[in-house]
Amino acid sequence: MTTIGLLTIGSELLDGRVQDTNSNFLCEELSAAGFSVKSILSCDDVLEEIVQAIEFLSTGVQTILITGGLGPTTDDLTREAVAAYTGKKLILDHNALENIKAFFEKRSRRFFKTNEKQAMLPESASLIPNPEGTAPGFQIEAKQSKSFIIALPGVPRELKRMFHDTVLPYLRAQNRQETPPSRHILKVFGLPESLIGERIESLKFAQEITVSYRAKFPQVDVVLKSKQSHLLSQAVSAAKNVLGVQYIFSESPAESFEEVIHHLLLQRRGTLAVAESCTGGLLGKLITNSSGSSQYFRGGVISYSDQAKMELLGVESETLSVHGAVSGPTAKQMAEGAKTRFHSDLALSITGIAGPEGGSSEKPVGTFFIGFAAPGILEAFHFVYPSHRERVRNYSAFSALDILRRYLAQLPLPTAENTHYFLSLSKA
Amino acid sequence: MTTIGLLTIGSELLDGRVQDTNSNFLCEELSAAGFSVKSILSCDDVLEEIVQAIEFLSTGVQTILITGGLGPTTDDLTREAVAAYTGKKLILDHNALENIKAFFEKRSRRFFKTNEKQAMLPESASLIPNPEGTAPGFQIEAKQSKSFIIALPGVPRELKRMFHDTVLPYLRAQNRQETPPSRHILKVFGLPESLIGERIESLKFAQEITVSYRAKFPQVDVVLKSKQSHLLSQAVSAAKNVLGVQYIFSESPAESFEEVIHHLLLQRRGTLAVAESCTGGLLGKLITNSSGSSQYFRGGVISYSDQAKMELLGVESETLSVHGAVSGPTAKQMAEGAKTRFHSDLALSITGIAGPEGGSSEKPVGTFFIGFAAPGILEAFHFVYPSHRERVRNYSAFSALDILRRYLAQLPLPTAENTHYFLSLSKA
Repeated sequence: MTTIGLLTIGSELLDGRVQDTNSNFLCEELSAAGFSVKSILSCDDVLEEIVQAIEFLSTGVQTILITGGLGPTTDDLTREAVAAYTGKKLILDHNALENIKAFFEKRSRRFFKTNEKQAMLPESASLIPNPEGTAPGFQIEAKQSKSFIIALPGVPRELKRMFHDTVLPYLRAQNRQETPPSRHILKVFGLPESLIGERIESLKFAQEITVSYRAKFPQVDVVLKSKQSHLLSQAVSAAKNVLGVQYIFSESPAESFEEVIHHLLLQRRGTLAVAESCTGGLLGKLITNSSGSSQYFRGGVISYSDQAKMELLGVESETLSVHGAVSGPTAKQMAEGAKTRFHSDLALSITGIAGPEGGSSEKPVGTFFIGFAAPGILEAFHFVYPSHRERVRNYSAFSALDILRRYLAQLPLPTAENTHYFLSLSKA
Repeated sequence: MTTIGLLTIGSELLDGRVQDTNSNFLCEELSAAGFSVKSILSCDDVLEEIVQAIEFLSTGVQTILITGGLGPTTDDLTREAVAAYTGKKLILDHNALENIKAFFEKRSRRFFKTNEKQAMLPESASLIPNPEGTAPGFQIEAKQSKSFIIALPGVPRELKRMFHDTVLPYLRAQNRQETPPSRHILKVFGLPESLIGERIESLKFAQEITVSYRAKFPQVDVVLKSKQSHLLSQAVSAAKNVLGVQYIFSESPAESFEEVIHHLLLQRRGTLAVAESCTGGLLGKLITNSSGSSQYFRGGVISYSDQAKMELLGVESETLSVHGAVSGPTAKQMAEGAKTRFHSDLALSITGIAGPEGGSSEKPVGTFFIGFAAPGILEAFHFVYPSHRERVRNYSAFSALDILRRYLAQLPLPTAENTHYFLSLSKA
């Protein structure tokens, strides 16, 4: 099997300012494609250290994949280091320069002289186009170590696109890879990671099945792999069964939670409005992540003050004084108000205490109510997810989307039995 | 300065199943304590590869910090590899064994013979107790490379505790840590990274000054470091001057753009409302990232449909039909509507084309208008930032915050001369 060494370059990785996520992305993709990563090395933006790193990695691998250090500034030294290691000069690549200039032109941005540096490639290197940014990548044969060096920029979006468009097809064409194992992903929302692990491990899968978990708060991806596809499908069924299908919002690797909602709303032809308090606009932001959301999303009110709740959503002052702004009755009136004012079929509302201030013994930080209005339905769901401000806000926005998802997909709505952190339901 | 090499061991890191977060934790902690990490290497659970990795890392560092490979199973080989590298035998450490047995007893768990393996340490190593788990760590001198090797388990909770309890005090006592260089951060918004680089590099700083850039879209951090504080302050002044002070929103390492706005609004005692179209709630979400934002933030309207713009914000239907929803006049009426409906002193609005659909030759994807209403002011700022949906949305939300920041800090508002991607201004 073809083995690969990864090199990530940048002082920001070594002083802890930045977490290297590119390596994990590349390891996962390469492994899924049947390649084996032998080691990962991160080094500083120092010419000799980059050269030493390439030398170390070149032992026993066919390809060295470098990320980072291709920017326009003086501390970007990957081009120079690869040129030094391969004994080549850096020369101006005219195609690269044209691409960079076109990139700037298309965006009506001024081209600066410093950007010309990005078009310098080691002699005999071939260009890897970067459709997402200015730094081109390149690949070059290193004769002395009989290996190939591939250099990509460190910006994750650019790296991912170039990896899929050019690098992976190139690796597949040039190298022997083993048939990769089949894999199946289960995207889970609403169960704690430890409980997911416990449930999956209770299945005691055969050795031919490998399971991995990836927590991408507030969702957890469970990835099952096997070279034997009949064993894999058995394992997938068992996993879905033990987890509970209503927690699995997608089985498609590229689909986000917001896209699931997007497709369901387009399919069911419902229109939607929101009313948000503690999330301050996050719920609307998530819904409008999908291009084309204007087909169903009418809008929302961020009612961050009591006055706004009353004047823009019609929440009654008595409701606020008797039950409080963070309560089931307020959440219901917010949802109803959003539905009425935006003339929508469906409405979601969120009111809660994101913290760190504002909690009480009765309503601790992490308390939130989701209001849901649909034809014939007006309910409020009471949750407590005690955590940091950012997590509480994320968890409450996704909990609101999850109620909508379950409604649209005709799955059971949250109850104390089927949903974690859920406390109680209040009906209209 | 004492330099450290990190080695993380485990096949789960190389096939992408697990993201290595230990390295980032250690880099951050070590850097803050005045130590320097030279490189990070991840390798497989293979004896010879671990030994080679230690050999590579030992060049030019005083300490090698290993994480992982201390478990009880056959693929846990850190003990064996360190023994092989240092030329020592593995011997049973009786203190380690007692600790492990006590750990099991305390939790009423059965002690298995396999766990005894975890008490085997290279001869002459000293034990690092693990209060959180069964795998003890150890430290040992490697005479041939004049370095110290420290081995810790890979479980993040155990690692963190042992690092703080034992390793960091040990490193502080044994090693010379230099006073870390003074550093100064300039957080920039509104200039492209390449232009920032060009301007800073035009200053041709002395060798004693190091400059690094960190793009955290849509902001760029410029970090200047030097051991000579008078040179650093000269460099900082020159950098501020060449960049332009109005682009520098903060010089405080921990302060976010939103927090700058938060402090300015608290200080100036203004209240704020927003009206958002293409950003769908993102602007409100950013403003409410700060706990305590309810002191000035009244709320907002996400007017994702023309009807919502008219009914909830009072935008005139003629304005929409003559100028369009994405226009200066609409942006101004949105801002004015938000200010009126939320009874606020200040209001921001955003209307634009985030794409990828909806662009035209007259109003391409990336076109957006920011409306700004303040006592005696009602203006709309026209920008074009051609990019992806997510970037356009982010850039437009931060551009709106930046207009507010400049107003509150009494800096010049955007003009075609002082602001990139800015096209024109329309006044009330």
